[in-house]
Amino acid sequence: MKLITAIIKPHQLDAVKEALEAYGISGMTISEASGYGRQRGHSEVYRGAEYTVDFVPKLRLEVLVDDMDASSVADVILKSAQTGRIGDGKIWTQQVEDVIRVRTGERGSEAI
Amino acid sequence: MKLITAIIKPHQLDAVKEALEAYGISGMTISEASGYGRQRGHSEVYRGAEYTVDFVPKLRLEVLVDDMDASSVADVILKSAQTGRIGDGKIWTQQVEDVIRVRTGERGSEAI
Amino acid sequence: MKLITAIIKPHQLDAVKEALEAYGISGMTISEASGYGRQRGHSEVYRGAEYTVDFVPKLRLEVLVDDMDASSVADVILKSAQTGRIGDGKIWTQQVEDVIRVRTGERGSEAI
Ligand SMILES: Nc1ncnc2c1ncn2[C@@H]1O[C@H](COP(=O)(O)OP(=O)(O)OP(=O)(O)O)[C@@H](O)[C@H]1O
Ligand SMILES: Nc1ncnc2c1ncn2[C@@H]1O[C@H](COP(=O)(O)OP(=O)(O)OP(=O)(O)O)[C@@H](O)[C@H]1O
Ligand SMILES: Nc1ncnc2c1ncn2[C@@H]1O[C@H](COP(=O)(O)OP(=O)(O)OP(=O)(O)O)[C@@H](O)[C@H]1O
Ligand SMILES: [Mg+2]
Ligand SMILES: [Mg+2]
Ligand SMILES: [Mg+2]
Repeated sequence: MKLITAIIKPHQLDAVKEALEAYGISGMTISEASGYGRQRGHSEVYRGAEYTVDFVPKLRLEVLVDDMDASSVADVILKSAQTGRIGDGKIWTQQVEDVIRVRTGERGSEAI
Repeated sequence: MKLITAIIKPHQLDAVKEALEAYGISGMTISEASGYGRQRGHSEVYRGAEYTVDFVPKLRLEVLVDDMDASSVADVILKSAQTGRIGDGKIWTQQVEDVIRVRTGERGSEAI
Repeated sequence: MKLITAIIKPHQLDAVKEALEAYGISGMTISEASGYGRQRGHSEVYRGAEYTVDFVPKLRLEVLVDDMDASSVADVILKSAQTGRIGDGKIWTQQVEDVIRVRTGERGSEAI
């Protein structure tokens, strides 16, 4: 299994969520984060306000997937999160050794 | 070393924390998250309110452990987080290459 | 590529950020977290208040780096986060299989 983590613009969440649902993804976790990339010092617009501070609000998504879905799911997030403007985000993929579904105790791919 | 991440129901935190302490776990990190699993569209109950929105509030736990403890610690979380109702959560295990304890500069298993 | 995650004292953020900038790091993600280490039950001071509760507020940093930078970046965080008092934090390093820069679609080291 793989864990795909994405830092996205908050207002792209609906687009990313719909694209993941259309792909058939069964679940995801989000949390609030903030950060900066290469334009630190430059400003980004968020909710109509211009952020000149370093840390711009972002959303952090986590999606557990089967090995065979990992590359497609990263592409689905890439396309749906992309606005073409600076600060669009990062997506990274990591190996996961085991997954457990808590209610049923299932493990591995069955648990996702 | 391993990193065990668990998404649990917020009201299970005390049970999970007590179970991890009873096992002898020396530390953990929690953060607020929200998410959904396979019943997206169905509702879950949280603090007496029924959530029909997609994202249900959850807690995200991280526990760094020695290789030899990883499987037992995942089981301890599984048993203490389980209520038998939908939305009980996910637990996943990942490899960690190095750990540093900041105050002492210790590394590896000593640092956990 | 590697992902370096650090749990630090919130008031050390500026020092860590400046040290990472001085090293030449191009981006980072932060989120709010809380936790405890080995002195659970003992108290920690945060913003002048003594916390006797278990979970002390912390910041969670994530930095994606090239393989060749991983060890130096962990050291930069270690030195800048260290106050010498209990609760200074943990740093861990994990393998990352792929990184994507969302705006440009670049992958791998180019994407960081
Ligand atoms: N090296 C990094 N490590 C961890 N998180 C990062 C890193 N770089 C960027 N991020 C996270 O991704 C978010 C968006 O980054 P951003 O899209 O600005 O990257 P970028 O490389 O500057 O690309 P662009 O030129 O398109 O802005 C940041 O706010 C931060 O949360
Ligand atoms: N594929 C996934 N990737 C990332 N996080 C997930 C995934 N599936 C579920 N989660 C997280 O775990 C939480 C709980 O999921 P949940 O227990 O509902 O999973 P489930 O497979 O639907 O199991 P159940 O049938 O018992 O409800 C979600 O709110 C979400 O935060
Ligand atoms: N085993 C662990 N797993 C996950 N997170 C941890 C673990 N231990 C500590 N942490 C996180 O790191 C934070 C700081 O831990 P802390 O520095 O107190 O570790 P420690 O081993 O007790 O070191 P010290 O003796 O210097 O206090 C905790 O609040 C928690 O968020
Ligand atoms: Mg940028
Ligand atoms: Mg569910
Ligand atoms: Mg401690």
